[in-house]
Amino acid sequence: MKVAIFFGSKSDVDVMKGAANALKEFNIEYKAYVLSAHRVPEKLTEVLNEVQEKGCEVIIAGAGLAAHLPGVIASQTTLPVIGVPIKGAVEGLDALFSIVQMPKSIPVATVGINNSYNAGMLAVQILSIKYPEIKEALNNFRTEMKRKFIEENGEGVEL
Amino acid sequence: MKVAIFFGSKSDVDVMKGAANALKEFNIEYKAYVLSAHRVPEKLTEVLNEVQEKGCEVIIAGAGLAAHLPGVIASQTTLPVIGVPIKGAVEGLDALFSIVQMPKSIPVATVGINNSYNAGMLAVQILSIKYPEIKEALNNFRTEMKRKFIEENGEGVEL
Amino acid sequence: MKVAIFFGSKSDVDVMKGAANALKEFNIEYKAYVLSAHRVPEKLTEVLNEVQEKGCEVIIAGAGLAAHLPGVIASQTTLPVIGVPIKGAVEGLDALFSIVQMPKSIPVATVGINNSYNAGMLAVQILSIKYPEIKEALNNFRTEMKRKFIEENGEGVEL
Amino acid sequence: MKVAIFFGSKSDVDVMKGAANALKEFNIEYKAYVLSAHRVPEKLTEVLNEVQEKGCEVIIAGAGLAAHLPGVIASQTTLPVIGVPIKGAVEGLDALFSIVQMPKSIPVATVGINNSYNAGMLAVQILSIKYPEIKEALNNFRTEMKRKFIEENGEGVEL
Amino acid sequence: MKVAIFFGSKSDVDVMKGAANALKEFNIEYKAYVLSAHRVPEKLTEVLNEVQEKGCEVIIAGAGLAAHLPGVIASQTTLPVIGVPIKGAVEGLDALFSIVQMPKSIPVATVGINNSYNAGMLAVQILSIKYPEIKEALNNFRTEMKRKFIEENGEGVEL
Amino acid sequence: MKVAIFFGSKSDVDVMKGAANALKEFNIEYKAYVLSAHRVPEKLTEVLNEVQEKGCEVIIAGAGLAAHLPGVIASQTTLPVIGVPIKGAVEGLDALFSIVQMPKSIPVATVGINNSYNAGMLAVQILSIKYPEIKEALNNFRTEMKRKFIEENGEGVEL
Amino acid sequence: MKVAIFFGSKSDVDVMKGAANALKEFNIEYKAYVLSAHRVPEKLTEVLNEVQEKGCEVIIAGAGLAAHLPGVIASQTTLPVIGVPIKGAVEGLDALFSIVQMPKSIPVATVGINNSYNAGMLAVQILSIKYPEIKEALNNFRTEMKRKFIEENGEGVEL
Amino acid sequence: MKVAIFFGSKSDVDVMKGAANALKEFNIEYKAYVLSAHRVPEKLTEVLNEVQEKGCEVIIAGAGLAAHLPGVIASQTTLPVIGVPIKGAVEGLDALFSIVQMPKSIPVATVGINNSYNAGMLAVQILSIKYPEIKEALNNFRTEMKRKFIEENGEGVEL
Repeated sequence: MKVAIFFGSKSDVDVMKGAANALKEFNIEYKAYVLSAHRVPEKLTEVLNEVQEKGCEVIIAGAGLAAHLPGVIASQTTLPVIGVPIKGAVEGLDALFSIVQMPKSIPVATVGINNSYNAGMLAVQILSIKYPEIKEALNNFRTEMKRKFIEENGEGVEL
Repeated sequence: MKVAIFFGSKSDVDVMKGAANALKEFNIEYKAYVLSAHRVPEKLTEVLNEVQEKGCEVIIAGAGLAAHLPGVIASQTTLPVIGVPIKGAVEGLDALFSIVQMPKSIPVATVGINNSYNAGMLAVQILSIKYPEIKEALNNFRTEMKRKFIEENGEGVEL
Repeated sequence: MKVAIFFGSKSDVDVMKGAANALKEFNIEYKAYVLSAHRVPEKLTEVLNEVQEKGCEVIIAGAGLAAHLPGVIASQTTLPVIGVPIKGAVEGLDALFSIVQMPKSIPVATVGINNSYNAGMLAVQILSIKYPEIKEALNNFRTEMKRKFIEENGEGVEL
Repeated sequence: MKVAIFFGSKSDVDVMKGAANALKEFNIEYKAYVLSAHRVPEKLTEVLNEVQEKGCEVIIAGAGLAAHLPGVIASQTTLPVIGVPIKGAVEGLDALFSIVQMPKSIPVATVGINNSYNAGMLAVQILSIKYPEIKEALNNFRTEMKRKFIEENGEGVEL
Repeated sequence: MKVAIFFGSKSDVDVMKGAANALKEFNIEYKAYVLSAHRVPEKLTEVLNEVQEKGCEVIIAGAGLAAHLPGVIASQTTLPVIGVPIKGAVEGLDALFSIVQMPKSIPVATVGINNSYNAGMLAVQILSIKYPEIKEALNNFRTEMKRKFIEENGEGVEL
Repeated sequence: MKVAIFFGSKSDVDVMKGAANALKEFNIEYKAYVLSAHRVPEKLTEVLNEVQEKGCEVIIAGAGLAAHLPGVIASQTTLPVIGVPIKGAVEGLDALFSIVQMPKSIPVATVGINNSYNAGMLAVQILSIKYPEIKEALNNFRTEMKRKFIEENGEGVEL
Repeated sequence: MKVAIFFGSKSDVDVMKGAANALKEFNIEYKAYVLSAHRVPEKLTEVLNEVQEKGCEVIIAGAGLAAHLPGVIASQTTLPVIGVPIKGAVEGLDALFSIVQMPKSIPVATVGINNSYNAGMLAVQILSIKYPEIKEALNNFRTEMKRKFIEENGEGVEL
Repeated sequence: MKVAIFFGSKSDVDVMKGAANALKEFNIEYKAYVLSAHRVPEKLTEVLNEVQEKGCEVIIAGAGLAAHLPGVIASQTTLPVIGVPIKGAVEGLDALFSIVQMPKSIPVATVGINNSYNAGMLAVQILSIKYPEIKEALNNFRTEMKRKFIEENGEGVEL
């Protein structure tokens, strides 16, 4: 298990699936947990220790509103933590600000609002600096992405 | 000791002094701590337990940017927690959103941006429902506030 | 009767129900009133006096747009007033600002946009500093909330 | 006395002077008061009644932060109330929203942030529909304003 | 004809109806025009002159997006101009800013986003300083509004 | 004369100078005018006609607050109009929205807040499609800009 | 071919059709391409060169979120580039800011959010300074637009 | 050389120094470059290839306004790219949105506005999953940070 995915409620599954999808494309093992920084803080700490013992190297955390989850996790680990702001109110700006504006020394690598796929992809990119096979797969993915994009969008489109 | 005041950095002393000033006007015992939810989470828990053992009944917490401190405290106590958004960036909206938009069941009683005096006053109001002498002092304070306001601003102003 | 709930229009009933729900979980007596700071200011003052005579100790007030109701109530009582910004326009920011940005000395304890449940919960927390039975119920509630959260969300979730 | 000007603190004098300046240009009698909707609500009501008895026909009210003053005044009179949002935080958006977003039936005629001169000018325009001499002065003012503008800015400017 | 109502497109009829409704309650004669500051500027000037010749005393103008209509009208008349920001994008903030932030000397009396009813009511209040019968009707309206509000919302509401 | 530059007040000279600077680099004839859409609408129309008779092909207009000037100009000409939002309040967002959110058929080519240099440069680019010598100068400018940038910033910088 | 239209995904076709519609009204040849600055940067450069060789004189580029496409194109050509912010999140403000706030020397002519029709119209206006037949068609278009507007909206509307 | 730092102008040196400071604390080799996505796109590509050949494993890119630099870099490499929004206008929201809201597949790991120190720290955390000595140093850093924080802020602070 290389990546652990956390989010605060089962209702976030649809938004957070994207992270899993990106990881699956690269056959990277992950495990997902519904855990809340505010409702079950001790359990969060427990599971965080657990996943690190199991070899987890990157953490993805999605949260909405006053989205403390990614930052609270970041305060308890030195693993890179990727934060996904989930849109729940004020266009997701509350979640974005709560995740990206971390204080000095405890960063959260923030991706776009509801863009959990990019969180997964960023985890892949981070792992790729260590695992040559992921690096290779990533380069192939980009090449293939370009090929497909051009194939699908051809030489101009009807407007 | 009835009120504990927390904030994340000595540089916040000027903004947070207002809370102490309000409490002093009512002779309410308080103690202030510089503690960070992200940098010293274990110490925060320790001090939180300590102040509760000492009889603390209301907590005031000020924080800027991704202001997690009030919410993290609220997740670890059932005492009422008053949050003060401290302006550090984006006009203080990051701190305001990070404090006020708490998830279901774990509220933070949020006051205005940088308005720590009102946090102190709100603590007084909360304590006043239990302590009749504070209730009385509060009523006198309001009466006096009105008297002074009218005295100072008289019957019209030059413009 | 310990808590009075005010809001400006019957159309706010759905948003404000959460406050009542939280109070019901703790068997706290409350009464709700549709009253407007702008349309029936004298009636508001009358009912405010009435509920205080009946022993009301905490006030919850929900309002949208230029949400003056919580602040106007706060100017007429020294009871703690909890404000619920109701989303009506500009993502609820008008209501949030109109409630949270109160001037020096007249605070409103603001909770999240449309989050009336947290207003009820905050009222419970405030009352708990006076009533040991509420304190106990609150601690049990938290323990039970944690137990249930872990039970429901188990050891990881399919993603 | 045709116009009454209200604002919440002597520190607002500089911002609010513009209103007086506009009224002076048209020799319109006014009186200014420092009064707060939150701190001295009863006094506000008293003075409001007073100015109406003295023949006041338009009210100007300036306020910052959770700027309730114009709306609270509007709820107690049927005179036209002009609101001036005073910039105190979040770029003055809190004051603007608190003034302009009034509920159905109780409008406040809102002008630009800190733009009290326009509040005075709007009062003049409102009075001009009743008083032909003000109407005439207003038309002359516009003609003169245009003449001066063209005189001062001539036929092109060095850049 | 005392009031002229302008707006830029037939698609705004639903939003602007409120202005007419308020005027109808007071039997105030009005006429409505679809006219655009950008598409038919000369026609706008022509109709503006026309309505003023017909005795129009207050103008209401609604517009969305870069909402220039109220300001352009205000630049061509000394009658009081009431602006209604119509929500078309960015939550109506573009229209609000384009209407309320007028330069020195050319005010627009701005009401809430989409709140054309209040524009109508403000027109009534402005006219009431000249016409005693409108003043009286307005006072009756307020009294009746209060009576109805209390009647409808009774002594507390089920929550 | 190929370009006319308009803005509403002599106090905008500093912000608008950038437009002239860009045009000077390409020896493009321009003339600048202080003119207001709200204060001298007839004079604006007069000068607009004048500059078009003199051969003006592109118009640059800068404005702040409820920045109607570029849009009002655009409604009176079919020349391309470039709008410069000038920061006066709310971080310049009022000017940006008032300029960029034009209705269907009457576009304003908007550049960044206070970025009048880019307005000048855009005028150059527009003219370059007609005048080969400007096209050539523009291409040389880009090449030179790149050369200088690399020269000045060399092979890495001390940090 | 005089105009090239670029956008990042086939899902933007509906929003971008407006640009084509405006060009069609003036019989201006255009070609549209789905191309991404981030996914196929080399292909973008290739097509950009191609369209310039084919005589393209104005470029329209629409993009959402972190909308880099118009700016990246502008960095690779000296043709005027018109940017259309496409609403994807935060009310389209992310796209608007990413397009309009370009650095010194590399402007993008930005139009309103989702307002691709105006991008097409702006392209027409730019071309009209070179092609007298387009100038004439444009003037006719404006005259006709005015005629139709007045015809359709007549002498007042029912409200 | 493990980390490359890019930013668009020498005037950003002060804001970006934090990234270097964090890397220096961990003795991680880095090199910094002033390069612009818009002004010297080809040079950027050239240097990007160069640093990757030299073994660069993480890239930090800071930019303001329409901050395309991090995203443009991310489109040309599969290395993890960390973006620092630099405050230049609208409170830095333009830069934040332009960096964080990247499209599917091309993420940028965004840190707080002007918070380049956290970009450096995030680079360290990313590298630590590969280099055990950095992991160890990072853990020591955290322990030491906590020790110092507690030492400096002691057992309560005067307020």
